[in-house]
Amino acid sequence: MIADPRLAGWRARADAALAQALPDPDLPPHRLRAAMRHAVLLGGKRMRPLLVYAAGSLGGADEATLDAPAAAVELVHAYSLVHDDLPCMDDDALRRGQPTVHVAFDEATAVLAGDALQSLAFQVLARAATPPAVTVAMLDTLADAAGVVGMCGGQALDVDATGQRGPALSIAHLERLHALKTGALIRAAVRMGGLCAGIDPAGLVRLDDFAAALGLAFQVRDDILDVEGDSETLGKTAGKDAAQDKATFPALIGMDASRARLDALVTEMDAALAPFGSAAGPLRALGRLAVERDR
Amino acid sequence: MIADPRLAGWRARADAALAQALPDPDLPPHRLRAAMRHAVLLGGKRMRPLLVYAAGSLGGADEATLDAPAAAVELVHAYSLVHDDLPCMDDDALRRGQPTVHVAFDEATAVLAGDALQSLAFQVLARAATPPAVTVAMLDTLADAAGVVGMCGGQALDVDATGQRGPALSIAHLERLHALKTGALIRAAVRMGGLCAGIDPAGLVRLDDFAAALGLAFQVRDDILDVEGDSETLGKTAGKDAAQDKATFPALIGMDASRARLDALVTEMDAALAPFGSAAGPLRALGRLAVERDR
Repeated sequence: MIADPRLAGWRARADAALAQALPDPDLPPHRLRAAMRHAVLLGGKRMRPLLVYAAGSLGGADEATLDAPAAAVELVHAYSLVHDDLPCMDDDALRRGQPTVHVAFDEATAVLAGDALQSLAFQVLARAATPPAVTVAMLDTLADAAGVVGMCGGQALDVDATGQRGPALSIAHLERLHALKTGALIRAAVRMGGLCAGIDPAGLVRLDDFAAALGLAFQVRDDILDVEGDSETLGKTAGKDAAQDKATFPALIGMDASRARLDALVTEMDAALAPFGSAAGPLRALGRLAVERDR
Repeated sequence: MIADPRLAGWRARADAALAQALPDPDLPPHRLRAAMRHAVLLGGKRMRPLLVYAAGSLGGADEATLDAPAAAVELVHAYSLVHDDLPCMDDDALRRGQPTVHVAFDEATAVLAGDALQSLAFQVLARAATPPAVTVAMLDTLADAAGVVGMCGGQALDVDATGQRGPALSIAHLERLHALKTGALIRAAVRMGGLCAGIDPAGLVRLDDFAAALGLAFQVRDDILDVEGDSETLGKTAGKDAAQDKATFPALIGMDASRARLDALVTEMDAALAPFGSAAGPLRALGRLAVERDR
C-alpha cells in the first residue's frame, strides 16, 4: 500500500530518531521510562513524521535536519494517546493491539509518561540541526498545535460533545472539533517540514490547505472504520464510538455522505498540491494512504 | 518579608506576563480555558519567575526579555501541581486555600488543563524577545528540567517512594528525588535568567550551585512546615505527609537535623553567590525567603 519508495526509508528514519530520543530503560525511574517507551515503540503508522519528511522533500531539505521535527511531532501524538486513553477520558484498554499505558502500568505512571513525552518532544526539537531561527519557528508551530487552540482544545471539545447528538452537535461543530483534535498536529507536521525546506509563505499556505484537508479526511476515515472495521485489524476496540454515543460523521450524516465527504477532501488535497508538481508525490501518496487505510 | 525592593516589581511583571499568556476565557472550550486560568491565577509565591528576574539582573538583562522565561517556568510549575493533585497521584483537594483543578472542574479537564499549560509554556518561550540562539538554549533548558531527567522523573520517584520508610529509603535517595522533582525547575529558572544576562559558563556553574542548594532548602523547609504549620496559613492540608506515610526530611532524620541541614544549605548558597558581590542581592534575598517562609 506504500506508494512512494521513499516512504519506507523515512519510516525507518523516524523509528530510529524516536528510539534515540527515548530515555535509557536501564536507569531509574524504571517504571516511568518503560511506560514512555511502551507508548511510543509499540508501533503506529508514523503518519505525522512521514508528513514532515514528505513536506521537507519539496525543497530538498537534508533528511537529517528533518529527524528532529519528525520525532517531536510523533512524541506529542504518542503522549496525547496515553492521556486520551485514561479512565477519566476515553477509558480505552486497547491501543494498537496492546494494553494501553495505564493498563500495562498504572494511572499515575500514565499521566507522568504523557507529561514527560511532551517535554521530550520540545527538547528533541530544541536540539534540531536547523538554524536557530528555523528551530524557534518550528517550536512555536508545535507548541501552538499541541495546546488550547489545537490538540488539547479539540480533546476538550470532544469530551464535552460525548453524549450530545442531533441538533445539539452540528456537523460544523464536529469538523471544528477534529480540526483542533487531530488536524492541528497534522498541519504542524507539514508546516515544520515546509519550514525546513525553506518553502515561501505562499507555498506554506498551500501546504496548510493540503494538511487541513488531510487531517479532516483522516478523521472521517477513522469514523467509517469504527463502523466497518473489526477490532483485530484496527488494533483497537471497534464499534466503541456508537457504544459511547460519540459524535461521528456516520452518526451525524450517515455512511454514504461520509464517503462522499472523503472524496471531496481528496479533490481538495490534489488541488492544493497541484502547483508543486511531481515534487509533491510523497505528500500525495500520504493523502491517499489516509483515506484508503483499513486500520 | 520581601527584602529587595525590586522583588515586588518583578512579581507584578510575572503576574502581568502570565495574565497575557493565558487564553481568553470567553472563547471555547470555556471549561478548559477557565481551568487553565484557575491553575495559574490563584496565586502562589512566583518564586521561579522571581529567580529568572533576579538571575537576569546579574548581567543587567533587559527586564522585558525576562518576561517570557519567567512566565514559561511558572506555567510548567502550575501544570505540574494540577497533575500532582490528581486522585491517581497525591489526591489533594486543597491548593493555595482553593479547590484543586480536578475538584473545581473535573478529572478530564484537569488532565487537559495541565497538558495545555505545558504546551503554553514552550510557546511563550518560543516567542521570547531574546536572540534565537538564546531562545533555543532556554527551550532546551526548560524541556530538560521538565522531563524524565527532571521534574517528571522526580514525581515518579516520589510516587514510588510513598509508603517506603526506614532502610527502604535513604536520605541520599530522598535528596535525589527532590533534586529532580523541585530542584530541576528551580535550576532551570536561574539558568534561563543567566542565559539572558549573558553570564559566562563558569558563572553559570556557580549559579547552578546556588540553585541546587536553594531547591533542596526549599523542600526541607516544605517538609518542616508540613509538621509545624497549620492548614490555614499554608493554604493546603498540613500534616498530610505523615498521614500518607510520605518520605520527608523530618521523618528520616528528625526535626533538629532537618533544621541543621537548612542552615548548611544557606551557607552553600552564600558561598556560590559570593563572587557576584552585591549584584547578587536579589538572589540572596530569594534564598533567604525560601528558608524563612511560613507558607
